[in-house]
Amino acid sequence: MTGLPDRLDRQLDFLVEIDKLKTITRASPIADGTRKENSGEHSWHLAMFALVLADQAEPGVSIDRVIRMLLIHDIVEIDAGDTPIHGAGAGSTDQAEAEARAADRLFGLLPDDQAAHLRALWEEFEAAETADARFAKALDRCQPPLLNMASGGGSWTDYAVTLDHIDARVGKPAARGAPVLWQRVRARILPFFTAD
Amino acid sequence: MTGLPDRLDRQLDFLVEIDKLKTITRASPIADGTRKENSGEHSWHLAMFALVLADQAEPGVSIDRVIRMLLIHDIVEIDAGDTPIHGAGAGSTDQAEAEARAADRLFGLLPDDQAAHLRALWEEFEAAETADARFAKALDRCQPPLLNMASGGGSWTDYAVTLDHIDARVGKPAARGAPVLWQRVRARILPFFTAD
Ligand SMILES: [Ca+2]
Repeated sequence: MTGLPDRLDRQLDFLVEIDKLKTITRASPIADGTRKENSGEHSWHLAMFALVLADQAEPGVSIDRVIRMLLIHDIVEIDAGDTPIHGAGAGSTDQAEAEARAADRLFGLLPDDQAAHLRALWEEFEAAETADARFAKALDRCQPPLLNMASGGGSWTDYAVTLDHIDARVGKPAARGAPVLWQRVRARILPFFTAD
Repeated sequence: MTGLPDRLDRQLDFLVEIDKLKTITRASPIADGTRKENSGEHSWHLAMFALVLADQAEPGVSIDRVIRMLLIHDIVEIDAGDTPIHGAGAGSTDQAEAEARAADRLFGLLPDDQAAHLRALWEEFEAAETADARFAKALDRCQPPLLNMASGGGSWTDYAVTLDHIDARVGKPAARGAPVLWQRVRARILPFFTAD
């Protein structure tokens, strides 16, 4: 015994700590509209999107890497909170700095090799430059519209969102990583915005 | 237009339908003890267990397959409900039949090739015979004790569970797939059962 937690203890401490992702509330509801979605179940749902919609990814994308990326993509929210895409704080420098500090602390709970690996995977997701990350980001953009639609408006109503706003904020990154999928999702949500 | 939903529509319908897993309440709490865990966020947490605890798997285990298995392992609960491991219904024939019907309906929403693939993956998990499934099952047994411990008792208190009961119901399948991990988890929960 050295008094320092060993590899397995660090892993278990990390796994108990990230349980807090289940308490981070997002802007969009679950599909039945009874409550807001939390970031833990959201991460599961996105991983299922990657698994099921694999044939929407461009050639060369590793779905297993995309799944791993989506499993960890929101963990920084435990310290930095969720930033609603239709809200004012999205993309701010303050938010980016808070998320970087969160990544230091949270991934830093793990053994060094795993901390570096997951940190790099999270940064790849954030940068959305590789084909894997562009697909992961596209799925993260396609899921909330489907939940808003299922629940009768959700965060669109709360933030008075227009179709133009969606095309700019949601459609552009979605179409960059999964163009056919985005067109189908857009067709599904169109009735909400064109109803009189 | 044939009038039949195409591949992508079936996939999207499935992905919206399985949102219901977020409304299935489990017996164990989240770590802060404020509420019960739901099966959607539980599935995310288990996938993270597989990702982080990969070095606890026996040689030859595919962690990416284990992650996929854990992502889908509880989907049948949407129709069949959760069966608490310390409750009376665990392992009953009725429950197994309800889960088989649920698998028919839910995976059956997908295109045939994907339905067959995910159905087979779920059956492999349930049988717990392959090395991948034994590891997945072990993780599913190791996570609730850590949450019960973190929250001060959780479902152990609700079901008046003894350490003997845990060794039989939880420890045996856990040790079968991840013996070193189970010993560490058991050491972590021991104080709860030996405190006077
Ligand atoms: Ca279960």
